[in-house]
Amino acid sequence: MANLITLLTDFSTADYYVGALKGTLLRLAPGALLVDLSHELPPGDVEAAADLLAGAAPTFPPGTIHLAVVDPGVGSDRRILAAGAGGHLFVAPDNGLLSPVLPPDPTTAETQAGDRWVRSVERSQLFLASPGATFHGRDRFAPVAAALARGEDPESLGPAIADPVRLDAPPPRREALSGGRVLAGRIARVDRFGNLVTNLPATWLDDEPHEDDGAAGSQVEIAGHRVTRRVSHYGELPPGEPGYLAGSRGTIEISLRGESLAERWRVGRGTPVRIVIRRR
Amino acid sequence: MANLITLLTDFSTADYYVGALKGTLLRLAPGALLVDLSHELPPGDVEAAADLLAGAAPTFPPGTIHLAVVDPGVGSDRRILAAGAGGHLFVAPDNGLLSPVLPPDPTTAETQAGDRWVRSVERSQLFLASPGATFHGRDRFAPVAAALARGEDPESLGPAIADPVRLDAPPPRREALSGGRVLAGRIARVDRFGNLVTNLPATWLDDEPHEDDGAAGSQVEIAGHRVTRRVSHYGELPPGEPGYLAGSRGTIEISLRGESLAERWRVGRGTPVRIVIRRR
Amino acid sequence: MANLITLLTDFSTADYYVGALKGTLLRLAPGALLVDLSHELPPGDVEAAADLLAGAAPTFPPGTIHLAVVDPGVGSDRRILAAGAGGHLFVAPDNGLLSPVLPPDPTTAETQAGDRWVRSVERSQLFLASPGATFHGRDRFAPVAAALARGEDPESLGPAIADPVRLDAPPPRREALSGGRVLAGRIARVDRFGNLVTNLPATWLDDEPHEDDGAAGSQVEIAGHRVTRRVSHYGELPPGEPGYLAGSRGTIEISLRGESLAERWRVGRGTPVRIVIRRR
Repeated sequence: MANLITLLTDFSTADYYVGALKGTLLRLAPGALLVDLSHELPPGDVEAAADLLAGAAPTFPPGTIHLAVVDPGVGSDRRILAAGAGGHLFVAPDNGLLSPVLPPDPTTAETQAGDRWVRSVERSQLFLASPGATFHGRDRFAPVAAALARGEDPESLGPAIADPVRLDAPPPRREALSGGRVLAGRIARVDRFGNLVTNLPATWLDDEPHEDDGAAGSQVEIAGHRVTRRVSHYGELPPGEPGYLAGSRGTIEISLRGESLAERWRVGRGTPVRIVIRRR
Repeated sequence: MANLITLLTDFSTADYYVGALKGTLLRLAPGALLVDLSHELPPGDVEAAADLLAGAAPTFPPGTIHLAVVDPGVGSDRRILAAGAGGHLFVAPDNGLLSPVLPPDPTTAETQAGDRWVRSVERSQLFLASPGATFHGRDRFAPVAAALARGEDPESLGPAIADPVRLDAPPPRREALSGGRVLAGRIARVDRFGNLVTNLPATWLDDEPHEDDGAAGSQVEIAGHRVTRRVSHYGELPPGEPGYLAGSRGTIEISLRGESLAERWRVGRGTPVRIVIRRR
Repeated sequence: MANLITLLTDFSTADYYVGALKGTLLRLAPGALLVDLSHELPPGDVEAAADLLAGAAPTFPPGTIHLAVVDPGVGSDRRILAAGAGGHLFVAPDNGLLSPVLPPDPTTAETQAGDRWVRSVERSQLFLASPGATFHGRDRFAPVAAALARGEDPESLGPAIADPVRLDAPPPRREALSGGRVLAGRIARVDRFGNLVTNLPATWLDDEPHEDDGAAGSQVEIAGHRVTRRVSHYGELPPGEPGYLAGSRGTIEISLRGESLAERWRVGRGTPVRIVIRRR
């Protein structure tokens, strides 16, 4: 299974870019099995790419190579990264896309990298000659991923680095409140069903005393709306009434059954979300 | 070829859901070959999923596993089904999606199931632990499909059932008419070219006396429009003039060359269609 | 690697057509590896298909079979072509789609076909019986590609032909100008980022004396706009200011950083582009 390569780009499939990426991989790493994660990310949306990678990559078997190219800095001197985490390999531009799988920042208190590592790819002999500097996906990233698929030693690609670019999304917070507690976060993602996926861990709610009727115990506040109904799955929501629940990534989601809540409330990634918990 | 798994969802590829589905399958069924049918079904559109599956699945080789997750009831107690038909295996929620491949309803006159069977998957040890109940595609359906891909006996998954949910689309009808006959049906599907694909078997027309000029012999009536031109393929249609023809699934299609008839007439799935055949 | 088959269609994946194409290939050519290039071409856009194929196909390993079905003439008597170029095999309708890989037109000065060949597929025993004439992708093209994947001799498919349909896009021109030169071409493609990809070879500019500041030396004229900034990659563009650069296919692109220039200027494929080069 060392020849499994996943692909994550913002190229869209209406263009030749995805085809050229795949062809180059299959030419340079014969026998590789390519798996599309997505090519429909919003153009240049590094944060969405990092989030998608964080959700999808860990489900793959160890040894999988994840090639992710959302690269608004293509052609500049931004670095190309190769990284490892949990037995998986990653190749991507140094723009924060790999944030979820990078070793912890050594300048912070977190110092245990576990099995995580990151290198700057400087072995330019791998790169393909090209008439332009606008498609490093084909000319640089694919050859690096193909080298890993052929079993080449990651250490041969370039030096380990300590300063990869990291996305600095503010982490969610738990704050004391007179008579209760406030959980403060944001919408991390709107999915295709219009569910509002927050960055608030569902376990934070489970740590709190829970009222079955929800209303008296806690409420979600977002963009002037208050949501008091907690459910376990979408089907428990009465038509037309929003509720919140534990989602598939372990965070709180706010949902409306059979309809896009994001469209109805006109909210999106980054919108602040608070959950106010009152004790009686 | 027992390790071919097709994927049909309404997840869209702009999200992490498809990637997590694929990763889970490849982790739990090493060596499986995944084939995307579609991830762009309208959200929650079980009828569209059933129709797509009915058109695509039979073209695959026997032994193929078809995993279809359009699942508005995710997290509820709706059952998970495993089914077999024509040497193919199917895994999907019990919401009608598998209607085209289910054994005939034993409460009706049809009693010959042939090689068809359907079981309720109750072997919960297969299911993955999860922080939420919103993504059974990854946590339940994929592990069941992977078990089948590994060659596990379908009988080990759970008991045979007699009452799977069935879509109850009204079948097309043939009715006598003074001096002729009426075929009454509906638009079953609008394809991406805007062709109106009906549920009326083209062979029903072939059973009738046919006039070469069409106009005198029969006409299609739909949403106040009358179509009298019968052609054998789209290229025979004069620009701007609709016609009808036998389509790729054996039913009558109504088409406009190089343009979406669905958009021009503002019609869609479910719109009634009548074909009036007059004998002289 | 003889069993690698790429797929290029305008079917979209919201319909059953792509699934049926894949199933038929996998049934008739067991063990084939299918690679999606694109299914999202604009309906019937043969020129876009030819351009995408020209960009993606050469990156694949020799022996790859490229199946391309954008076929507004489906069902008519337009021919089905099998072609070879650079060790690759191609199957497509005879409507210009294969223009980039066809042997040179023998009626013109170009007479060296090199390793290129093209045949009309007339071995109708390969074709599948079908209830209609609207889906030759499944019923005719897929069986032909599968036959090639099984290793059947291309010569057995039908006779070599000298008159395949060719797209006659006007080639770019270099013209003398008092005190300089004019390069005259057109927008060949707008990519998903809104970059305007012309058909003007970037090497034509490199052949000219180049001014570092660009403005004095040359300017791009398009739809009443003048662009004087030449850069090497998108990141060098100041926000809000367009520039031009050598693109990934070796032609000049005109771009706006982080924004669609095609939308801002409301231009698209076919819009004339001139580059005026002045010598001092």
